[in-house]
Amino acid sequence: MTSYPVSDIHLAIDCIIFGFDGKEINLLIIKRNFEPERGKWSLMGGFLDAAENLEDGATRILYDLTGLKNIYVEQLGVYGNIDRDPVARTVSVVFFALINIADHDEEAMRLHHASWIGLDKRPSLIFDHNQMVIQAIEHLRYKAALHPIGFELLPERFTIPQLQKLYEAIYNMPIDRRNFSRKLLSTGLLIDTGLKDAYSTTRKATLYKLDIRKYKENFHSFWNFMPDSMMN
Amino acid sequence: MTSYPVSDIHLAIDCIIFGFDGKEINLLIIKRNFEPERGKWSLMGGFLDAAENLEDGATRILYDLTGLKNIYVEQLGVYGNIDRDPVARTVSVVFFALINIADHDEEAMRLHHASWIGLDKRPSLIFDHNQMVIQAIEHLRYKAALHPIGFELLPERFTIPQLQKLYEAIYNMPIDRRNFSRKLLSTGLLIDTGLKDAYSTTRKATLYKLDIRKYKENFHSFWNFMPDSMMN
Repeated sequence: MTSYPVSDIHLAIDCIIFGFDGKEINLLIIKRNFEPERGKWSLMGGFLDAAENLEDGATRILYDLTGLKNIYVEQLGVYGNIDRDPVARTVSVVFFALINIADHDEEAMRLHHASWIGLDKRPSLIFDHNQMVIQAIEHLRYKAALHPIGFELLPERFTIPQLQKLYEAIYNMPIDRRNFSRKLLSTGLLIDTGLKDAYSTTRKATLYKLDIRKYKENFHSFWNFMPDSMMN
Repeated sequence: MTSYPVSDIHLAIDCIIFGFDGKEINLLIIKRNFEPERGKWSLMGGFLDAAENLEDGATRILYDLTGLKNIYVEQLGVYGNIDRDPVARTVSVVFFALINIADHDEEAMRLHHASWIGLDKRPSLIFDHNQMVIQAIEHLRYKAALHPIGFELLPERFTIPQLQKLYEAIYNMPIDRRNFSRKLLSTGLLIDTGLKDAYSTTRKATLYKLDIRKYKENFHSFWNFMPDSMMN
């Protein structure tokens, strides 16, 4: 019978969780009340259980912190440098999650000393978590340019101005309203709900919702949501 | 002092290695002469050493098999299902490598019982290696549509017809010669070497080389190398 050498490497999961508050992209981070690095800010994470698949581990950790299931999650990458964790050799699989910021569970967040913090105001995080966040921001920018993942950050019904604010927050640059609106409507992904946004200053902005069937069927096709300046 | 629970998870690395023989994309796989699954085909891999960074582990494994360093390598993803390896719980970090097929080391390949096999003719592989290969093919198609990684598969000097054959092999579809040629030349990535391909049937095809500086500087920008049918 074959056997493998004893493992002295630990396997962890860390989660990047982005939300959008209508103005900017926020990151969900926790103030650690446990060692190592107690009292410092970090991503939400934990060890992989030996009896659990990777994606199940990520789902467990995300549910634990936000009270949410069925959110947008994907693998971002693996961080494994030998000196990244001072306690023991730990390889971390990083997951990238997008949620509608209004949906999180306040009580679960309090329990974990968690806060939503705007990307521009985020504090320094422990270990290599800062690098993970930078990679996640790049990934969000990259993927949102080609695939309709931005919608994961919006409430079920949204206006074109809200959508534009979201893309401006993602790319940290102003976007031409008319071009953007034309580009988005031409995708056929938006359904006019027939309702108007009661909170908009002019009370005129149309509320749209996503065509979920089209979204799912064409998710892996290429779209072009990117600001023109990003194209070669 | 904090300590972490004993780990009972093993950490492995598996490598997807693609090469292009002028006609089709080939995969470098080995016939295992060790347990488990002796005698079956698998990707080249190994355990991560506790004193080694992930990328260094991948470089070591790739060098061991091909005799090559400084090749194109990136993380593809992590496979960690609890039942993926019958011997012990093993999480595998998968790396994606592209090489010029003419460069590999014959002796190292013999030592590892390795073969280049055309993607369409590949045998069934052990564990979840088939899924890894499918993910790698999708990744190659995706990334080659937007970034100039295809050049990693070509010799230093190449003709436009060779480049077209490469893209036809990647997408497994015919590509319109005139459009493709215009699209490629307009990138400004190609430098005319002033030489002609002595092996081309007409002895007329111009040999180009890549503008390495432009390639590196603009690698993360978006290009458009994709067949038009892929765009929404």
